[in-house]
Amino acid sequence: MAVITPNPRVRKTPFTPGVEAQGVKGYTVYNHTLLATVFESLQADAAHLKKHVQVWDVSCERQVQIKGPDALRLMRMISPRDMDRMQADQCYYIPIVDHNGGLLNDPVAIKLADDHYWLSVADGDLWQFVLGLVVALDLDVEVCEPDVSPLAVQGPKAEDLMARVFGEEVRDINFFRYKRLSFEDTTFVVARSGWSKQGGFEIYVEGADYGMPLWDMLFANGRDLNVRAGCPSGIERVESGLLSFGSDMRRENTPYECGLARFCNSALDYIGKAALADQAENGPSRQIRPIAIEGEIGACTQAWPLMAGGRQVGQVTSAAFSPEFGVNVAIGMVDRSHWASGTRIELITEHGMRWAHVQESFWR
Amino acid sequence: MAVITPNPRVRKTPFTPGVEAQGVKGYTVYNHTLLATVFESLQADAAHLKKHVQVWDVSCERQVQIKGPDALRLMRMISPRDMDRMQADQCYYIPIVDHNGGLLNDPVAIKLADDHYWLSVADGDLWQFVLGLVVALDLDVEVCEPDVSPLAVQGPKAEDLMARVFGEEVRDINFFRYKRLSFEDTTFVVARSGWSKQGGFEIYVEGADYGMPLWDMLFANGRDLNVRAGCPSGIERVESGLLSFGSDMRRENTPYECGLARFCNSALDYIGKAALADQAENGPSRQIRPIAIEGEIGACTQAWPLMAGGRQVGQVTSAAFSPEFGVNVAIGMVDRSHWASGTRIELITEHGMRWAHVQESFWR
Repeated sequence: MAVITPNPRVRKTPFTPGVEAQGVKGYTVYNHTLLATVFESLQADAAHLKKHVQVWDVSCERQVQIKGPDALRLMRMISPRDMDRMQADQCYYIPIVDHNGGLLNDPVAIKLADDHYWLSVADGDLWQFVLGLVVALDLDVEVCEPDVSPLAVQGPKAEDLMARVFGEEVRDINFFRYKRLSFEDTTFVVARSGWSKQGGFEIYVEGADYGMPLWDMLFANGRDLNVRAGCPSGIERVESGLLSFGSDMRRENTPYECGLARFCNSALDYIGKAALADQAENGPSRQIRPIAIEGEIGACTQAWPLMAGGRQVGQVTSAAFSPEFGVNVAIGMVDRSHWASGTRIELITEHGMRWAHVQESFWR
Repeated sequence: MAVITPNPRVRKTPFTPGVEAQGVKGYTVYNHTLLATVFESLQADAAHLKKHVQVWDVSCERQVQIKGPDALRLMRMISPRDMDRMQADQCYYIPIVDHNGGLLNDPVAIKLADDHYWLSVADGDLWQFVLGLVVALDLDVEVCEPDVSPLAVQGPKAEDLMARVFGEEVRDINFFRYKRLSFEDTTFVVARSGWSKQGGFEIYVEGADYGMPLWDMLFANGRDLNVRAGCPSGIERVESGLLSFGSDMRRENTPYECGLARFCNSALDYIGKAALADQAENGPSRQIRPIAIEGEIGACTQAWPLMAGGRQVGQVTSAAFSPEFGVNVAIGMVDRSHWASGTRIELITEHGMRWAHVQESFWR
């Protein structure tokens, strides 16, 4: 494949010098920002993540800052999730939809104060949607992208490493909760979260100048823990059933199709609620399913159709060989007619036809 | 630099097989879509563009479709440019701003009908801003991304090649006007436009399946014209003073700062007009300037500060050596205090300090 060169439009991050020094071999672009995709190899990176601890430059998880007297009013408007239950130290995964119920993004919302939220967004300029609402309704809210660059520390030894740098109180942070912890002359929001199921934290590094000092301190403290630079793992996250917005779910999909019904519990009339009423009542006609694929597969660089009797009954959008489970693991959107566990369906890949099997559950 | 791998989130285009077959050496990601950056070399690609004809896969110029009874009302709301003067076959370059006058994008609008527009956008999900307005104001307009992939044919021999494929009537298309021309069993919008000053056209290929047949027909008809695959040239476009949204101008900038005052002529109360009133009257306090740079420069991978007396007085965001003009050409945003032609300013590059000279005009 061809190389990529950053420019002011495709942004480097505060941690790019560290990522480069650790020998990054592949990048993608996410929210106009570089995101590493491979260091040693996809398989070696995944195996290391499951045993040790990795530091991930996920600055590309840009924050949409919503701040001002109308912040909660706006959050209630865009959130299918009940915002009034949200605690002061909580992070909320929120599938945000348009007026037709189509997914626009699936950020993690962080409540900093009653009138101050960050939406840590997946790939897409969700701030433009929010800004459109604010401008049209003349809401008293600032919508901007603050100087915040998340750094993830993931893996079974993540808590030990974090405790060395931020103190023992990191151990008391519950899942999808955060504390403000000290670093040098400032504090960072530190949440127990991250895009793996290996455990870990995300540090919302506010102020680009703190980036490399923090990076260096994590590595200096983690030598005996075998700390390494890493990045979201295309193997581990598919095994774990973590969906990628833009690949596995898009504007054509609803939260119900993506198995996110439990995040649609707001009693208020949020944007898209009416359009989703039927699916809320009767369920969707297609849904995300774990899929195992027979044979050898190459990289999934575009959606692969699932076919039955000459008719398309779904598609696979993420797939990788899992050394841990000895099978090709995949994520697919499958029509109700074929979504039952055990169903065998033809999968048309760029590399030929393969048999796909609908699974009961993801591997982790 | 590291490599990039496409996936369903980083989309291939209908022309990717052609681009790959012609030996693309570099990609960037633009609107979640692959965009080639180099084939032979930056200098060789630019030299070829100026002599012959190139076919550019600019599918990444995604279209925001605005269609419905309220389309013109919406366009009047978001456009600083007088939409009521727009002719039925016209393309309008429109800097779109937020309520504070900050640039959100600089699309080319294409009027397909009184109730149907495409916005051919620069890098950024402008559709989300438009959708936010539509949802909040309950406008009767559909906002979506249609299956349209622009293909640019650029260079001094572009008209000859286009005439062979689409007929002699392409010669009658005026600048920033379009005709609907036949291809196989369909028609395409074909405009005289494109992101170079070497002349040429953009074909709005509606229907991905027509992509490779059109690509192949252009190459089959262009052998004696020395047709080649190409891409926007970082050298030619800086010589020509063509600004890149996301690099040279961003949400921090106004159209006046970017020298786009002539596109702000709407008499209506468009979004951002009030905030821009002072700059409309008195001019901006900083503005885009052509900059020549002394010495050797490397790639401009992030904004380079312009310094005078220890104070920042601007920045350079695009720069390249121009073999044609024998100088490093650049685009900078410069404070009023230092923007006069002939001013010499210190430029802090990633590769050391260089002297920058404000020019009277761009090189083409």
